[in-house]
Amino acid sequence: MLEQHSISVHTKGRSIIDITRDVDQRLRDAAIEQGLCHIFLHHTSASLIVTENADPDVHRDLETYISRLVQDGDPAYLHDQEGADDMAAHIRSVLTQTEITIPIHGGRLALGTWQGLYLWEHRYRAHQRKITLTFTGIDN
Amino acid sequence: MLEQHSISVHTKGRSIIDITRDVDQRLRDAAIEQGLCHIFLHHTSASLIVTENADPDVHRDLETYISRLVQDGDPAYLHDQEGADDMAAHIRSVLTQTEITIPIHGGRLALGTWQGLYLWEHRYRAHQRKITLTFTGIDN
Amino acid sequence: MLEQHSISVHTKGRSIIDITRDVDQRLRDAAIEQGLCHIFLHHTSASLIVTENADPDVHRDLETYISRLVQDGDPAYLHDQEGADDMAAHIRSVLTQTEITIPIHGGRLALGTWQGLYLWEHRYRAHQRKITLTFTGIDN
Repeated sequence: MLEQHSISVHTKGRSIIDITRDVDQRLRDAAIEQGLCHIFLHHTSASLIVTENADPDVHRDLETYISRLVQDGDPAYLHDQEGADDMAAHIRSVLTQTEITIPIHGGRLALGTWQGLYLWEHRYRAHQRKITLTFTGIDN
Repeated sequence: MLEQHSISVHTKGRSIIDITRDVDQRLRDAAIEQGLCHIFLHHTSASLIVTENADPDVHRDLETYISRLVQDGDPAYLHDQEGADDMAAHIRSVLTQTEITIPIHGGRLALGTWQGLYLWEHRYRAHQRKITLTFTGIDN
Repeated sequence: MLEQHSISVHTKGRSIIDITRDVDQRLRDAAIEQGLCHIFLHHTSASLIVTENADPDVHRDLETYISRLVQDGDPAYLHDQEGADDMAAHIRSVLTQTEITIPIHGGRLALGTWQGLYLWEHRYRAHQRKITLTFTGIDN
């Protein structure tokens, strides 16, 4: 059994956005009992991560950390047409994930207790981000 | 054909632990000839990597490198309730992998000659780490 | 439906090489309408990334950035038998991807408009790199 869905996530500029519920809702509609859920982001200036879902400070610290690791507007960048966050966003994307696969168990995303699935917007401005979900497995 | 298994890995604190054999053993029992093996770690302070399996110095150098890249107890971290390694572990996890897919060929993990699959424990203390394996493919 | 193919990519030393067309060509021959394409690299000193396909400066900047982030010939490395790029290549591999999954839609890789799939050679010298492609899904 295989299902593919397209979802759209509206971002309000650079931030880490919880998409666990959006994916889990689509999965519930799909009625797949056991299998795999593949999440693919169709962009190169945002990314996907699985990280802690309990303390919002974790997300603030991730942003603080990566802002230092990948300097916005670094004079070494040749690719800067769209501003200081342009090339930095591509680098952040390459250092994290464009796609993630999560097991499906009992018809739900089989995440650990403290795990959430997040879209990380790396551009300053708001964007509409497209995701393709592919569910494969055994139905119930 | 689809099979899901749960395995548990005991870590003795921060270190890189070879789990290739554990996964390959489960795969052999599953009798899937050709397909994909998905490995998912249910934690946000440890991670998965595929890296060189021959020289143990590679693993020491990876730890040396990431210890410098991601400072334990960085005063910039807000999330520090569980100690100096707490937020650092989440960052290390985001910069590496929470899940990896490896082809199955001839009933075995189709890794390159020099590739091994590793769990990287990022916390100082020993932990019990849960992994879900999902095998999909054609049986023999 | 499941198909597995092996492809070989010749690199001319450290550089970012577009492999989108190679994978898409194999996919077209496979006649899978909808599903997933898994790309696995059998090496630990090269890696896979999805990044911008329009401006070649993005690839130059990625190389500039990672060359600074991961120092070749760092005296801290114990693993240096094969030269200054040896351990650096393993670190670059761990910070990027060894395997990537891309949705198949309408018989093609469902990449975003600005996304391309790349093999990043991290060694100075030319190499022959082996990739296993696994296509799963519904045929047409």
